[in-house]
Amino acid sequence: MDWKQYSKNGKEMVDFIGEYLETIRKRRVFPDVKPGYMRQLLPECAPLNGEDWDSIFADIEKVIMPGVTHWQSPYMHAYFPALNSPASLLGDMLADAIGCLGFTWASSPACTELEIIVMDWLAKMIGLPDDFLHSKSVTNGGGVLQTTASEATFTALLAARTEAILRIKAEADCIEELDDAEINSRLVAYCSDQAHSSVEKAGLIGLVKMRYIESDDKLSLRGDKLIEAIKHDRDRGLIPFYICVTLGTTGACAFDNLMEIGPIAKSEDIWIHVDAAYAGTAFICPEFRKWMTGIEFVQSLAFNPSKWMLTHFDCTAMWVRNSSALHRTFNVEPLYLKHENSGQRLAMDFMHWQISLSKKFRSLKLWFVIRNYGVKGLQQHIRKGIKLAVTFEELIRSDTRFEIPAERHLGLVVFRLKGNNELTECLLKKLNSSGRLHCVPASLKGTYVIRFTVTSSQTTMADIQRDFAIIKDTANHVLKAYGIPENRISRAIPLAEIKKRKPGFGTSLLLSNSPMTPKIINASFVAIFDQQELAQEFVRHFGKHMDLSENCNSPQLRRKIKGLMLTDKQHSLDSRMDLMNTIMATYDISDKTNSQKTGPKTPRSRHFSCSSSVESLPGNSIEEMDENGELFVSQTKSDDNNTSTDRLHSSKSQ
Amino acid sequence: MDWKQYSKNGKEMVDFIGEYLETIRKRRVFPDVKPGYMRQLLPECAPLNGEDWDSIFADIEKVIMPGVTHWQSPYMHAYFPALNSPASLLGDMLADAIGCLGFTWASSPACTELEIIVMDWLAKMIGLPDDFLHSKSVTNGGGVLQTTASEATFTALLAARTEAILRIKAEADCIEELDDAEINSRLVAYCSDQAHSSVEKAGLIGLVKMRYIESDDKLSLRGDKLIEAIKHDRDRGLIPFYICVTLGTTGACAFDNLMEIGPIAKSEDIWIHVDAAYAGTAFICPEFRKWMTGIEFVQSLAFNPSKWMLTHFDCTAMWVRNSSALHRTFNVEPLYLKHENSGQRLAMDFMHWQISLSKKFRSLKLWFVIRNYGVKGLQQHIRKGIKLAVTFEELIRSDTRFEIPAERHLGLVVFRLKGNNELTECLLKKLNSSGRLHCVPASLKGTYVIRFTVTSSQTTMADIQRDFAIIKDTANHVLKAYGIPENRISRAIPLAEIKKRKPGFGTSLLLSNSPMTPKIINASFVAIFDQQELAQEFVRHFGKHMDLSENCNSPQLRRKIKGLMLTDKQHSLDSRMDLMNTIMATYDISDKTNSQKTGPKTPRSRHFSCSSSVESLPGNSIEEMDENGELFVSQTKSDDNNTSTDRLHSSKSQ
Repeated sequence: MDWKQYSKNGKEMVDFIGEYLETIRKRRVFPDVKPGYMRQLLPECAPLNGEDWDSIFADIEKVIMPGVTHWQSPYMHAYFPALNSPASLLGDMLADAIGCLGFTWASSPACTELEIIVMDWLAKMIGLPDDFLHSKSVTNGGGVLQTTASEATFTALLAARTEAILRIKAEADCIEELDDAEINSRLVAYCSDQAHSSVEKAGLIGLVKMRYIESDDKLSLRGDKLIEAIKHDRDRGLIPFYICVTLGTTGACAFDNLMEIGPIAKSEDIWIHVDAAYAGTAFICPEFRKWMTGIEFVQSLAFNPSKWMLTHFDCTAMWVRNSSALHRTFNVEPLYLKHENSGQRLAMDFMHWQISLSKKFRSLKLWFVIRNYGVKGLQQHIRKGIKLAVTFEELIRSDTRFEIPAERHLGLVVFRLKGNNELTECLLKKLNSSGRLHCVPASLKGTYVIRFTVTSSQTTMADIQRDFAIIKDTANHVLKAYGIPENRISRAIPLAEIKKRKPGFGTSLLLSNSPMTPKIINASFVAIFDQQELAQEFVRHFGKHMDLSENCNSPQLRRKIKGLMLTDKQHSLDSRMDLMNTIMATYDISDKTNSQKTGPKTPRSRHFSCSSSVESLPGNSIEEMDENGELFVSQTKSDDNNTSTDRLHSSKSQ
Repeated sequence: MDWKQYSKNGKEMVDFIGEYLETIRKRRVFPDVKPGYMRQLLPECAPLNGEDWDSIFADIEKVIMPGVTHWQSPYMHAYFPALNSPASLLGDMLADAIGCLGFTWASSPACTELEIIVMDWLAKMIGLPDDFLHSKSVTNGGGVLQTTASEATFTALLAARTEAILRIKAEADCIEELDDAEINSRLVAYCSDQAHSSVEKAGLIGLVKMRYIESDDKLSLRGDKLIEAIKHDRDRGLIPFYICVTLGTTGACAFDNLMEIGPIAKSEDIWIHVDAAYAGTAFICPEFRKWMTGIEFVQSLAFNPSKWMLTHFDCTAMWVRNSSALHRTFNVEPLYLKHENSGQRLAMDFMHWQISLSKKFRSLKLWFVIRNYGVKGLQQHIRKGIKLAVTFEELIRSDTRFEIPAERHLGLVVFRLKGNNELTECLLKKLNSSGRLHCVPASLKGTYVIRFTVTSSQTTMADIQRDFAIIKDTANHVLKAYGIPENRISRAIPLAEIKKRKPGFGTSLLLSNSPMTPKIINASFVAIFDQQELAQEFVRHFGKHMDLSENCNSPQLRRKIKGLMLTDKQHSLDSRMDLMNTIMATYDISDKTNSQKTGPKTPRSRHFSCSSSVESLPGNSIEEMDENGELFVSQTKSDDNNTSTDRLHSSKSQ
């Protein structure tokens, strides 16, 4: 393939990628393959002769895609996000084409200089103090792009170790010859029991003792426990030197108390590294910077634009207050890396800031993303994700079989089925094996939870509702399998919540102030969506079974649907109730459950009554229902925990 | 930008990239910017509102390109290659779009499985023993893609450290409580004084003593010196545990003697890691595997497909004979990373093979490259690069002012001006500041050399000749500036060498057997190239000054050139001499030097005689000459060092 052919094939690839990402919902988010699947599909040896592009390209769908976990899918809720975006992809296309390495300034000046500038931009965007800016620091501080947060955590630990060893040597009796490794054996580092596995790994590799301090009941590392641990270690002759403070833990996105930890670390000469891998992106929104209080005590900080900031992996932004410690750790400079401007402040050599010598032109994609979205665009993206998580949280809370054992702060909700861990484990296993959504578990002090992160920037409210419907339905199966009796539980849904989902709805909600008024189907759904969407939903879901759309055998109903679809106004619930009742009246759907696969039923004149079993509605069956996830209202109870007065009460009948 | 717009903009980017790489010779390979240049061009803060794509795209040429060192340029000879290729770029485009992370099998099965398969392919391609194959190892071995060779070296050191600590603990008295860090303080690692800076860095980070053993006069680490060092250290109570053997050093691409080192390391329980970062790619060609003799003693090995194998950075292929040591080093497994198939042999979790938790879908680009080129295509690429390096070496040797202080093995030639280091330093500085080619220096046991690596896959023989011409001309200036007297040196160029450059030439070379026959201009050039190329060269170079092309005022010459361009046959040198003489006869070019910028000269009838100063020919002036670099024949002397009988003698007149 020459560059002319690249241009041709590259355009096909661009189209393939655009199509892949736009229609990603069509794919199972979690693949249905067994370990070793690919061995069956590929030869044992590399081909002797080059293959043409078409046969390589064809194997993408044949060999690769069946085994991909689709991280960009709105149905991906596992781990934390690892987003890309058009701007990010274009940036890396260019960076890869330029293909320069940026270990020294001279090895590609643009690579180093853009990184300096973009890291300063980003530092300002998340409100870091001036000491972390290349252009303003009086402490020789600044930012650097690392490959991963693991690497940043480890790099910071190494720098802290270097500082500690130098300090102890300086303090030691001049006669006493102290070996670095001997000092190392007395060093002790700290983190909370909620810290990421990479902190443990950093300790293992750095060969320092790592103390896991018990977090409080909000999973936050607190000052009192830290003081205890330090005292205990000092008494044993150990030297505390490093603490990794997590802002946004992996398990539940909890926040260590930096405000308390900061002054303690300062007085004890302990290097604070902040791991804000996921949550750091949220600091672009000023309202989330409260967790950064105490940042003035911090020596280094890292977060991953490669998680939530629409910049694809790898890309970890790391700042240090004083880069000298990094230099002292990594400074190895042979002649072949010396250049005319070596050592000049402006001609910085980033190889002294990282473990590896080489680095790619990573700032390019970050620069593209920041410019293309702007600060406001990124804030909007973050706030939207959080809003969707809030919605999911509300949906989970609406079903009292579930519980949320840790407070939601950003885009991650942890939930579980009440009862022993086994139930939730089983639920998760079923969810993942369905391939329809993907979550991973966490253990919060022994409590097994499912982590549900809003990941994709394409996620919509409908996606969240669809996912919740799947979760709810799967929970039905799990509880049934475990022989747990059906319990009819209801919870009030405050009007405010409904308004939040669809601000345009206003107070026209007919039933909002008459909680005991019974019997509409899908009330909240109706309340939430425009009738356009609603009618389309009806056609999609009900039509499948009842042949409503094209060959609808009820002219009256067809007219009604058409009428609703044509108007653009917000209707009161009555019209929807009316529509629903017409649908229910026209078709017998009360025994759908037993005959779902048999196609449209013959219309019957039985008038639908919501006192009939709601379970039997197709809308309540996960097999039939995609977006239409929630909120069958059959009866109401007041929820004492809810202070809202305007309520639409819903109940779950299972 | 949504995905539709991505498709549009992506295609523009593809075109931009294709154009950039195809026409890269037009750009200065080394940029002409001062540190801090970009600060003047960009705002201090990120934009609040998103910018449109066009303004971002426009800044590529305005802001980025002026500061890029063009690593893909054929004029790039610094460091080692860091190549890309169409297939590689397409592979990463896709990997970035899929945007999955491959830390566990479940996090994206395709990512893990393809890596396993491709690493097995690659192991077979370079002839590794079965123990390094996932599919065949009985020692739990296999390959993994790391980010950089630095990381691989360090990872291997960590694994070796883990093994050593475990072994020493097991051997120690049960009562004695040995601390890991205490054992660590007694560990000692080895490498040659030619090892890459990343080996030193690995020792610094791993907090182990690193012993730099003196290499022999061929810059190779030998067994005797290693035995000495080990004995010395054992006597001092230290524990040798790791040796980094370099196959293809950075300074001069020298090879440590693995055959000698292997058995020593085995008997001493020392982990051998092979760093073949650059040279590893050459092992795809069986004829270069001689340096791998002793591979059966090796515990781990790494090379960079991201250097010479047309797969863009980052991509380091690393193999271990037994992965258990890696697992014991890195195994940290929290619940959120557990999956249903955790721990199964086929469902390998690569997070236990590397420092960082996360990894990207790097095997995709490697797979595309291997398939698109095939083993033979890659071999061809390697052999071509080496052939070009051989040519460059011959050109350097043809000018006795230069010397080559270390043997050339693959695509790297180190050379210098005879005399003190200052001359060569000055030469390099001038070369780099010209921006026309880019090299970096190395220090070989105190001798300052210029490293000239053939990097780009697009490099042609003409590029090499052009570069040599620049080097030679720059050397003229340097020597002049240092007041070193002109010395007229000549060397015989064997016909075999000319044939190698243009096999089609055969023995039709009129002058080959009459060494004392004087005075043709550019004979070798004529001998090397087809007349098509030659005539075009003439038109390009001479035409610029003599207005030969369109407005040629010599109808006779115009006809002659046209005639030559139209034929496709191989002419004898006579016709070329004839042409040259006609040109020289038509124009007075003997005093070009003083009037180069004044445009075409009026034709004169003075017949050209090669006894006139050759310096004055435009073809000998670096300012005028791009490809037409070498080989003005004015007189000949026999070169006693050359045993060839068929010779075309050339002389350098300066």
